[in-house]
Amino acid sequence: MDNFVFYSPTEFVFGRDTQQRVGELVKRYGGTKVMIVSGGRSAERSGLLAQVRESLEQAGIAYTEQKGIQPNPTDEGVYEGIEIARAEGVDFLLAVGGGSVIDSAKAVALGVNYEGDFWDYYCGKATVPVPGTLPVGVVLTIPAAGSEGSGNSVITKLDGRHKISVRYPMHLRPRFAVMNPELTMTLPWFQTACGIADMLCHIFERYFSNTDASVPDAVAAGLMKDIMRNALILKDDPDNYEARASIMWASTLAHNGLCGTGKAEDWSSHRLEHELSAWYGVAHGAGLAVMVPAWMAFVSKKNPAKVAEFAVNVLGISPENKTPEILSALAVELLKQFYITLGLPVTLRDLIGEDPDINLLVGSLHSNMGETLGAYVPLSMKDCREIYRMAQRTDTLV
Amino acid sequence: MDNFVFYSPTEFVFGRDTQQRVGELVKRYGGTKVMIVSGGRSAERSGLLAQVRESLEQAGIAYTEQKGIQPNPTDEGVYEGIEIARAEGVDFLLAVGGGSVIDSAKAVALGVNYEGDFWDYYCGKATVPVPGTLPVGVVLTIPAAGSEGSGNSVITKLDGRHKISVRYPMHLRPRFAVMNPELTMTLPWFQTACGIADMLCHIFERYFSNTDASVPDAVAAGLMKDIMRNALILKDDPDNYEARASIMWASTLAHNGLCGTGKAEDWSSHRLEHELSAWYGVAHGAGLAVMVPAWMAFVSKKNPAKVAEFAVNVLGISPENKTPEILSALAVELLKQFYITLGLPVTLRDLIGEDPDINLLVGSLHSNMGETLGAYVPLSMKDCREIYRMAQRTDTLV
Repeated sequence: MDNFVFYSPTEFVFGRDTQQRVGELVKRYGGTKVMIVSGGRSAERSGLLAQVRESLEQAGIAYTEQKGIQPNPTDEGVYEGIEIARAEGVDFLLAVGGGSVIDSAKAVALGVNYEGDFWDYYCGKATVPVPGTLPVGVVLTIPAAGSEGSGNSVITKLDGRHKISVRYPMHLRPRFAVMNPELTMTLPWFQTACGIADMLCHIFERYFSNTDASVPDAVAAGLMKDIMRNALILKDDPDNYEARASIMWASTLAHNGLCGTGKAEDWSSHRLEHELSAWYGVAHGAGLAVMVPAWMAFVSKKNPAKVAEFAVNVLGISPENKTPEILSALAVELLKQFYITLGLPVTLRDLIGEDPDINLLVGSLHSNMGETLGAYVPLSMKDCREIYRMAQRTDTLV
Repeated sequence: MDNFVFYSPTEFVFGRDTQQRVGELVKRYGGTKVMIVSGGRSAERSGLLAQVRESLEQAGIAYTEQKGIQPNPTDEGVYEGIEIARAEGVDFLLAVGGGSVIDSAKAVALGVNYEGDFWDYYCGKATVPVPGTLPVGVVLTIPAAGSEGSGNSVITKLDGRHKISVRYPMHLRPRFAVMNPELTMTLPWFQTACGIADMLCHIFERYFSNTDASVPDAVAAGLMKDIMRNALILKDDPDNYEARASIMWASTLAHNGLCGTGKAEDWSSHRLEHELSAWYGVAHGAGLAVMVPAWMAFVSKKNPAKVAEFAVNVLGISPENKTPEILSALAVELLKQFYITLGLPVTLRDLIGEDPDINLLVGSLHSNMGETLGAYVPLSMKDCREIYRMAQRTDTLV
């Protein structure tokens, strides 16, 4: 087990009707003038935004709003948010939505009281958030990104299609996250399925490691099994509260850092996917359903040990009479079948509707990430090209 | 899954040599005048206290000290600590030790700027900690109580032997906990084993519940299996760093609230044991090794379902051709054998050296807890008497 720091100070307020407590929570965490940040129209249509406004009004808290944050949020939306927040003297950001809305609010939080361009924090020009970085609170509507409990934010710069993830745990972890599973019942199935692929991958990127650390692995194995079990329940019964609640809470624990304590992490699948959503605008979770099996098939050839352990401890494949190579091949196939069962694409053509430009993807990856990627099996750009090719094939991956 | 709030803001700084960061951490969390609280002589002998003092000095932080906190800490030690802290103008408490030291420091934290008697917070006369409640930091030396990540504190009032546990999550969660597994290598085996019984019980008291909540149960099952596996490794190889590290991190997660999210908890085994350590001064973990199997055998007769699930999912007993009653009986026996293997007592006579006065224990329990105890199976005082009797028997419990 490597040395680590684990810091997850967010107050999670979980369960039915909890959105009614948002005013009280903003007050407790010192907000006096809030900017509500939201995405599409569903939060308005469902009445959630009205409930949030009412709760703020009852607590005597003034607010302004930024609407229309899109999936794969861009620098454009962040600049707009910073402008509104500065003009209105906002001292607290309240994200009402999923990962895109939260990540955009976090970027605004970094930028409002920073004299330079907020993008400095994403391109590496600035690394220490200013003391005036605004606090963020969350009302979560999509269990997927785990941004409600993480210090991460992913923003795409439209000029050049740079999709960059940053992590500032001390500054960007939300003060609180209100999580009502009932709010997720009206999600379209495709979005539910994408969320499931995303939260599973947040665990994969920590689980597949060459560092031994049995505690996070025990937690990770329990969470992965529980997510997969509940995903299949939800597929037949999308209104099942227990399954919705389990998926929602698991999505937070998948990404609050717990599963990575004491381990070397490997975010290759996410990096490979980020190029797809940056250049082809695909849903992140769907992109992961394509890239993860391809990545796993590739690395299994060089280092099958942990994938074989995953096959046995998480997927329940009996190790009897099977080599690590056979076990890891079965793991890839089972995972692919799981995604197919959820209705997710597992090839690039199904994902994008055409064959992507792999030169473009690898070139962009190279420009964003340098020569190598990952730790479980360090990947050269040639390896990454091969993984994209494997994701392109329509026949079996292994 | 019930509604819940999960709030675990402690910064855990884990791994080798981390005690050298304590000065920097106290500074970050606003301490300017520290009281170092410690227990027996081992922290002095090992050089740990010298390292802590040096780290504070390097950070330019003044300190005073309170030494000699005993296991099962008493109100006497708390009054002494409050007096020193007031006289010296302390604004930060640094507990260097295990659960007893941390719990005593937390009680001092509640009392220093409270005008009344700190015991008001334990007997229920006061329930809202004053704004001046002092922050607490921890350098952990014994993985057991989980107090480094909890809002709990257990203090025994010498007059009347009232051993009372309180929980103030917003105020008593330590700001940081430095956790170096190497510091636990010199623990006597009996203390290591007692710690293991304690951390397991912190999970039991949350796991054995009538509320369905698959996420915390998945985490709990993983942790329990990992603790039991590493306990057996440590028994033969007490210097095994990986096993020490896993046990240490698991002990925190066992009690930071995660395993109880969305569940009705049941602290009966702890309540039953607290009377034993209050009246007979036994080690808490050893008392639990006696009381847990007796409690589990008793409740299994009325509600075997969750104990049977524990037998299968945690202890790895095959459910084939077994009723829930048989499975739960096997779970009790396996757990008892596990404690025996660790060298812990499993009968009251082995624990205390004589037969205890059960009338005294039940009378005291009644006076502290009222008519009933617990939730998985609500226990009358008659039931509690029966459980003490079962713990007295030297033959099999089931």
